[in-house]
Amino acid sequence: MLFMVRMDVELPFEMPANVAADVIAREKAYAQDLQRQGIWKGLWRIVGEYANFSLFEVQDNNQLQDILQNLPLYPYMKCQVTPLATHPSAV
Amino acid sequence: MLFMVRMDVELPFEMPANVAADVIAREKAYAQDLQRQGIWKGLWRIVGEYANFSLFEVQDNNQLQDILQNLPLYPYMKCQVTPLATHPSAV
Amino acid sequence: MLFMVRMDVELPFEMPANVAADVIAREKAYAQDLQRQGIWKGLWRIVGEYANFSLFEVQDNNQLQDILQNLPLYPYMKCQVTPLATHPSAV
Amino acid sequence: MLFMVRMDVELPFEMPANVAADVIAREKAYAQDLQRQGIWKGLWRIVGEYANFSLFEVQDNNQLQDILQNLPLYPYMKCQVTPLATHPSAV
Amino acid sequence: MLFMVRMDVELPFEMPANVAADVIAREKAYAQDLQRQGIWKGLWRIVGEYANFSLFEVQDNNQLQDILQNLPLYPYMKCQVTPLATHPSAV
Amino acid sequence: MLFMVRMDVELPFEMPANVAADVIAREKAYAQDLQRQGIWKGLWRIVGEYANFSLFEVQDNNQLQDILQNLPLYPYMKCQVTPLATHPSAV
Amino acid sequence: MLFMVRMDVELPFEMPANVAADVIAREKAYAQDLQRQGIWKGLWRIVGEYANFSLFEVQDNNQLQDILQNLPLYPYMKCQVTPLATHPSAV
Amino acid sequence: MLFMVRMDVELPFEMPANVAADVIAREKAYAQDLQRQGIWKGLWRIVGEYANFSLFEVQDNNQLQDILQNLPLYPYMKCQVTPLATHPSAV
Amino acid sequence: MLFMVRMDVELPFEMPANVAADVIAREKAYAQDLQRQGIWKGLWRIVGEYANFSLFEVQDNNQLQDILQNLPLYPYMKCQVTPLATHPSAV
Amino acid sequence: MLFMVRMDVELPFEMPANVAADVIAREKAYAQDLQRQGIWKGLWRIVGEYANFSLFEVQDNNQLQDILQNLPLYPYMKCQVTPLATHPSAV
Repeated sequence: MLFMVRMDVELPFEMPANVAADVIAREKAYAQDLQRQGIWKGLWRIVGEYANFSLFEVQDNNQLQDILQNLPLYPYMKCQVTPLATHPSAV
Repeated sequence: MLFMVRMDVELPFEMPANVAADVIAREKAYAQDLQRQGIWKGLWRIVGEYANFSLFEVQDNNQLQDILQNLPLYPYMKCQVTPLATHPSAV
Repeated sequence: MLFMVRMDVELPFEMPANVAADVIAREKAYAQDLQRQGIWKGLWRIVGEYANFSLFEVQDNNQLQDILQNLPLYPYMKCQVTPLATHPSAV
Repeated sequence: MLFMVRMDVELPFEMPANVAADVIAREKAYAQDLQRQGIWKGLWRIVGEYANFSLFEVQDNNQLQDILQNLPLYPYMKCQVTPLATHPSAV
Repeated sequence: MLFMVRMDVELPFEMPANVAADVIAREKAYAQDLQRQGIWKGLWRIVGEYANFSLFEVQDNNQLQDILQNLPLYPYMKCQVTPLATHPSAV
Repeated sequence: MLFMVRMDVELPFEMPANVAADVIAREKAYAQDLQRQGIWKGLWRIVGEYANFSLFEVQDNNQLQDILQNLPLYPYMKCQVTPLATHPSAV
Repeated sequence: MLFMVRMDVELPFEMPANVAADVIAREKAYAQDLQRQGIWKGLWRIVGEYANFSLFEVQDNNQLQDILQNLPLYPYMKCQVTPLATHPSAV
Repeated sequence: MLFMVRMDVELPFEMPANVAADVIAREKAYAQDLQRQGIWKGLWRIVGEYANFSLFEVQDNNQLQDILQNLPLYPYMKCQVTPLATHPSAV
Repeated sequence: MLFMVRMDVELPFEMPANVAADVIAREKAYAQDLQRQGIWKGLWRIVGEYANFSLFEVQDNNQLQDILQNLPLYPYMKCQVTPLATHPSAV
Repeated sequence: MLFMVRMDVELPFEMPANVAADVIAREKAYAQDLQRQGIWKGLWRIVGEYANFSLFEVQDNNQLQDILQNLPLYPYMKCQVTPLATHPSAV
C-alpha cells in the first residue's frame, strides 16, 4: 500500500550546530536503511526547499505512523501524508 | 531530470457524457504511451480525489511543457509542477 | 485500517430537481448498506454545511478508493481523506 | 451532543524534556479517564502529524469548553471544534 | 446554548428575479419568526457584504441544524458555525 | 454603531507566570468595566480556542481604536474588526 | 469617520454587452456624484485588476452600507471594508 | 521602471472555439508588438499552467495599466503586479 | 505616481521597552517629515491592528523602495505594495 | 533552461549584527559571481519586501539545487521555484 509524504524540515535557530549535524546524520542512516528494505521506495529533494517528496510502501497506517515518528528529524518537520491507489491508466 | 506533477481534474457539468468519455479514453492512451516510453515514470491516484501524483523524467522544461499541454484533459485540469533534485540520503 | 473522510457536497444549480432527488436517494441506500457491513463506521452531519465527517474501516487504500468513487454524489463532492493510526492514549 | 475536535500540538523548542514528559503523562491520564467515562468517545492519531481527531459527547458547549481548557497540553495546542448533528443517512 | 453563525449568501446569476424575490421574502419571514421566539437572538448585516453574523440560542446541535437547513436561502449560502461558551470575564 | 470583533490571544512561552496572571486580571477588570458601561455589549468564549467574539457599541472608529489598544492583552492578541449595519430582517 | 474599501468586480460571462455597458455607465455617474458630495474621498484603480481602493467618509456604518448596496455593480463585486482611525503619526 | 506581472488565463467553457482562436491570435500580435518596442522585456510560460511571468519596462503605473487592460485576453485573466527596484547585489 | 502600502508591524517580545520606544519615536519623526514633503500623502490606522494603510506619491519604484527600507520599523514590519492608476470614474 | 525563483529572506531577531553583516556580504559576492557567469540572469528587489525575483539559466534541476543551497542566506530564506518554458508569443 502506497503513500506519498511531503516532508518540510525547519531546524530551530537556537539548535547548536553539532546537535543539528548529529540528528541529520542519524536521519540519513535511518532513511537509507528503510530504502534498502524496500519500504521507502522513493526520495526526492524539492529544489530550493528543505523538503522532499517520499514514497512509502507499508502494510497499513500504523506501520507508516511508526516509521514517521521515529525519524530523527520528526520533531522538526511537517508531514503531509497522501494515500495513493492504483491509477486506472497506470500500465 | 525529474519532476513531480500533481494534476487535479474538473470536468464542466455542461460537458456531454460522450464527449467526456472520449477525452478520458484519449487521456488513457496518451498516458500509457508515455509510460511505456519511460518518460511518465510514476502515476498514482490520490484517494478520494479526481487527482494524481505523476513522476516525469524529461530532458528539459520545454519537453515537460509539451507533454503536459498535449494531455487531452489539459484544458480541464490544474497542474502543480515541482522540480526534483537528487536527495543526499537517497541510496 | 481507519480513515477519516470529510465530504463537502455541491450540487450544480443547473441540475434538475428530480435528478438531484434520485442521486440523493441512491447515495442514502449506498451509505446505509456500507454502514450495515461495518465498513462505514461513523457518519455525522457538520452543522450548517452540506458536509459530513465519515469514518471508514477498510483493508487498504484501493478499497477506500473503490468505495468513494462509487458514491452516487462523488462527481459533486470534494473528499479530504486523513489516514488514522492507533493513538497512544486510546483505551 | 457530539463534537469533532481536531487537536494540533506544538511543544516549544525551549521546553525542557522532563517538563514535556510530565505534561504528556498527565495528558494521557486525563484522556483515558474521559474515555472511560464515555465522554471522549473516539481518539485517533493523524498519521505523520502531532495531531488527532477526537469525538466528544457532552451535555452542552460549556462542558466541552471545560474539558478542553483543562487538557494539560491545552496551552500548546490548536483546537478546531466542529458541531455534529444526526446525519439523515445514518443507520 | 449559544452559537455564532456567519452566513454568506450568493445567488446564482441565472436565478430569475422573481424567484430571488420570493426566496428573500420567505427568508425574512422565517428569520423574523425565529427572532420573535427568542431563538435567533442577534442578526447583523456585515457592511459591504451579502453576509451576516447571527447569534442563536438552541437546545442542542440538532435543533441548530434543523433551523439552518430550513432557511429558504440555505442552498445559496455558506454557514460557518462557532460554538460559544460562557466567557470568564462576562458580567 | 456596532462592531463585531474577534480576538485571538497568544501569550509568549517566555512570559513569566506571574506577569501573565497580572495582565489577565487587569484585562478582566477592564472588560467588566466596559460591559457595565454598555459599550462592550456581548462577550463570548469560542469553544476550544483562546479567543472570543465581542460586540461593541461605540460612537465612532476612533473610540473603538482607543478601547482596543488599551486592552491589557492587546500586545498579545490579533483583532479582526467587522463593521455591522442594521439587517433588513432584524425585528 | 473613514473607511477603506477594496472592491473587486467580476461580471458574469453570460451578461450581454449592452447590459454590462449600462451598469458600468450608471456606476460611473453614481461614483462621481458621491465624490462631488465629499463622501467618496478617494478612488484609485489597482493596476492590472478590475478592482479599486476607495476611501469613504461617512456618518456611521449604516450610511456606508446604504452607499455600497446601491452601487449599480454591487451584485457583481466583493467588498472588503476596513475601518480607519486617526494615526498617531499623522500630521 | 520595471514590473513583474504574473498572468493566469482561464477561458470560459462556453466560449466558442473560433472566438477563442481569434482572441488568442490578437493577444499574440499585441504581445509581440510590445516586445519589439522594448516594453514587454521578458515573457516566459509557467510549465504546466495557462500562465506566464512577464517583465515590463514602463514610464509609470498608468502606462502599465493601459497596456494590461488592452490585452485581448484581459477579461479572462488574473494579473498579479509586483513593482521592482534595483537590487543592491545586481551587477 | 501613487502606491497604496499596507504595513503590519510586529515587535519581537524580546525587544527591550526602551529600544522599542526609541524606534517608534524615530518612525514618527520620519513619517511626519515625509508627510510634510507631500510624499506620504495619507496615513490611516487600521482599527484593532498594529497596521496602517499609507498612500505614497513618488517618482518611481526605486524612490519608494528607498523610503520604505529606511523606515526605522522596517525590520519589524511586512509591507504590501499596490501600484495605483487613475480610475476612469475619478473626478 | 530557465527558472524563476522568488526568495523571501527573514533573519532571526537573535542574530548578532556582525554575523548578519557578514552573511549579507558573502551573499552579495556569491550573487555577483553567478551573474557574471551568466547563470543568474536577472535579479530584482521586490519593493517593500526583503525579497527578490531571480531568473536562473542552468543545465538541470541538480545544478539549480546546488546553486541555491550554497547561498549564504539559504538557511534564512524561503525559495519558490517555477520552471519556465518558451512562450509561444515570445519573439
